[in-house]
Formats: sequence, C-alpha cells, structure tokens
Amino acid sequence: MSAGKLPWTSWRHVVKLDPDRAIANHQLEELGRIATDAVLIGGTQGITFEKTADLMRRLRIFAPSLPVWQEISDQSAVMPDADGYGIPVALNAGNTDWLIGKHVEAVEQFGRIIPWERVVTEGYIILNPDAAVAKLTQSAVPQSSEKAVAYATAAEQIFGIRVIYLEYSGKYGDPDWVRAVRQNTNVHLVYGGGIDSAEKAVEMADIADTIVVGNALYEKGMDVVRETVRAVHSLRK
Amino acid sequence: MSAGKLPWTSWRHVVKLDPDRAIANHQLEELGRIATDAVLIGGTQGITFEKTADLMRRLRIFAPSLPVWQEISDQSAVMPDADGYGIPVALNAGNTDWLIGKHVEAVEQFGRIIPWERVVTEGYIILNPDAAVAKLTQSAVPQSSEKAVAYATAAEQIFGIRVIYLEYSGKYGDPDWVRAVRQNTNVHLVYGGGIDSAEKAVEMADIADTIVVGNALYEKGMDVVRETVRAVHSLRK
Repeated sequence: MSAGKLPWTSWRHVVKLDPDRAIANHQLEELGRIATDAVLIGGTQGITFEKTADLMRRLRIFAPSLPVWQEISDQSAVMPDADGYGIPVALNAGNTDWLIGKHVEAVEQFGRIIPWERVVTEGYIILNPDAAVAKLTQSAVPQSSEKAVAYATAAEQIFGIRVIYLEYSGKYGDPDWVRAVRQNTNVHLVYGGGIDSAEKAVEMADIADTIVVGNALYEKGMDVVRETVRAVHSLRK
Repeated sequence: MSAGKLPWTSWRHVVKLDPDRAIANHQLEELGRIATDAVLIGGTQGITFEKTADLMRRLRIFAPSLPVWQEISDQSAVMPDADGYGIPVALNAGNTDWLIGKHVEAVEQFGRIIPWERVVTEGYIILNPDAAVAKLTQSAVPQSSEKAVAYATAAEQIFGIRVIYLEYSGKYGDPDWVRAVRQNTNVHLVYGGGIDSAEKAVEMADIADTIVVGNALYEKGMDVVRETVRAVHSLRK
C-alpha cells in the first residue's frame, strides 16, 4: 500500500455517496458530467449489501467514466468491482474496534484475497462530536488544533499512514485547524464536512489536498456540487 | 521513519535490559565483549528516570561500543542520548491508550523535538496472557496463529508498520506461530520470550529476523547470553 502510487494523490474534489440515501439515475448521470475526480461510496448507518450493490450498479451504468472507490465500513457490503477501497482507521476512536479490531477481523477472514494494491488507509480524525460517526466510534474529539496535529503526526510518523481525513461530517470546520495539520505534516490531507458553496470549497481546497462533498448533494442538489467542482478546478495551477 | 534505513534491519541478536532489575558493572563490561548487536532498554514496571539514567550512564562507561536503544514506555524516562528509540504500539491492546493514546500525548508534548529519523515503531503482538505487559495493556491475546497473522498483516498493510515484535515475555513461544507470521508478511520480525539456551536461540533466530534475550541474563547469567549470541552468529551466512 503506497498512497504515492494511488489515484488519491491526484484527486482534488471527491463526491461521497451514501448508499442509505436516495439519488436518482439522472443525478448520477449529471455527476458523471461535472468532472469531480472520483466517487467515494461510504456512510455510517444503514449500509447493506443490497443498497450498496444497487448504487454501484447504477453508477457504472449512468456515470461509467467516474472512478468509484468504496470506503469499507462493513465487510458484508464489500463490492468486488470497486476501483479501489478506502479503509478508515478512526484515529481518535474511543475503543480499539474502530482503530484496529474490525480490520483484524476482516483481514483474518479475507486476508488472502484483499487486493492491497487497490487499498488506501484513511486515517480519520473525527472533529464533529455531534456526527453519527463520532457517536458510533465513541470518538474523543480533539479540543485543540494542537491535539488534532498530534493525532495526524502520530498517524504519519508512528503508524505509516499517508492519508489523513479531517472529518467534520455535516458541519463546516475551522480552516485554521486544517491549516495547522497541513503545516505540521507531510500527509495527503483530505477535508470533509459542510462544503455547500463555491466559497467554502475554495477555502478548504486551498489548504487541503482533497475536499469531499457529501451532504450538499442530497440537501441542495447537483448545482451546488457543480459549483464546488468548478471552484476547486479554478484553483488548479 | 523507515525501518530500511535503520540499524534494526541488521540486528540478529539483541539484549533487553530492564532498568528495574539489578545488573553489575562487570556484567555490562562482559556484555560489551560478547558481540550482541544492540542493547534495548525497556521494561514494563517500575521504570523511573533515575533508574534508566543510571543504567544508560553505566552502559556508556562499561560497554561504550554497544548501540543503546531505548524502548519508550513512559515519556518521563526518555534518555536524550540514546542512539535511537523504539516506540511500542500494542496492536492487541484492550484499550486505545497503548495503541495510540499515549503516543498522541507524547507527540503533543514533544512533537517538535522528537528525532523521527532515530525512531522505529515496534508493532507488538503480545502472546503471553500471564505477562505483566499483557495485564497492563489488557491485551486480547490471539487464540490462533491465524489471528496473530491477521494482526501482523493489518499492522503492515493498513498501518505502515514495518517491525513486528512477537512478545512472549518470559515464556518460550510456539515456533509454528512465529513461522506463520514470517511466511505471511514482509515485516522485520522480532521474537522475544523465554530464550535461555543456544537451542532456543537457534530455533527462533532461524525464523525471525531478530531475537531478543532478556530474562535469561538476570536469571541465568551472562554465560547463557554469550551462548545465544554464538548460536545466532553461527546461523549467519
């Protein structure tokens, strides 16, 4: 596993689709046209094999040119035909399950068939205490940017994790915190949470390597997603 | 941090010294003559700055040619003049403290002055449920070699940990388990526990990359340590 060889490093704008939320075929078609760099399938609640397989199948039909990566949260819903897999490690989880426990179980069961060359570890730092993922993982949410930097540094230097995902999930985060992690690490930095306008997309994409747009699609529609893509691409050299 | 650049990869035989146990100056002098590859200072209980500093100082006087690495278990006992540092990550710990929590605290406090180029992460898999370290970390001791392999694989592939330390601490382990981890990973494999004879040293050094001799020194004396060094060196091509 080496982030350097993986598409992640060239992604600036990613759309996260939640199998548990409704999206129409014509919206997927639009998604294929708006030049986001990739789709990440992932969610926290209500993820089943059926729902995930349905979303995957429709993405391949209606947005065939989009790279589709799956973020594995439940080993029973793994899609064998995803282009790659994100394995979340909840760095500030309150118990070992979300740090390594579930991963060990999955490796024990599927170790020999896991395509490691298409797997990227995402070192999550969960920063919104009200998010479902914070509750699920009983996260100890950092109370200072210094603590967030310490998590990222420990992940980078002690573990060899190369992708850090600052997860505000549903809430727009503090650019100063994102900047602090950026300035103190050499990881590939992903930002997610509350991006629902061109302004916010530009602000975070200017600091982080990749921004993730999720809820805005479901709550505000595809026009907002398109705006964020344009805004991020305008930043490209 | 890259194990490939670090002395660890060339070490075949290491002696672990516990600051909480007595060792005479003439024994340290002997240790310097018997061609072990390095000394690792580390222990689980009763580690204080004073005891650690005393051991360190006497090692530099009586065995000046030996590389001395310190395994950090308590940040208050860190020796600035160690040649390098091992940072234990207890992969099968029962709570997050020993996986990442204490590490994040130390990074937050000392991050800017940590010499990462002299730091190696040791991914511990604790395999003796009766050992003090198993109790301290509330370890979930694997009940099968497959589970031990899964821990090692998760550490290698999901985290980027490159040194795995199979810790039987005080008990001689099962060579088949060590072999299973060897055959299913590409990590630098360290074995520790119950090596108190040339036969055991050869058996484990034939499978693992590095063997650690600890208790035998205190319980059986330097002659036994010397035997294990000779035995391991006889395996070298």
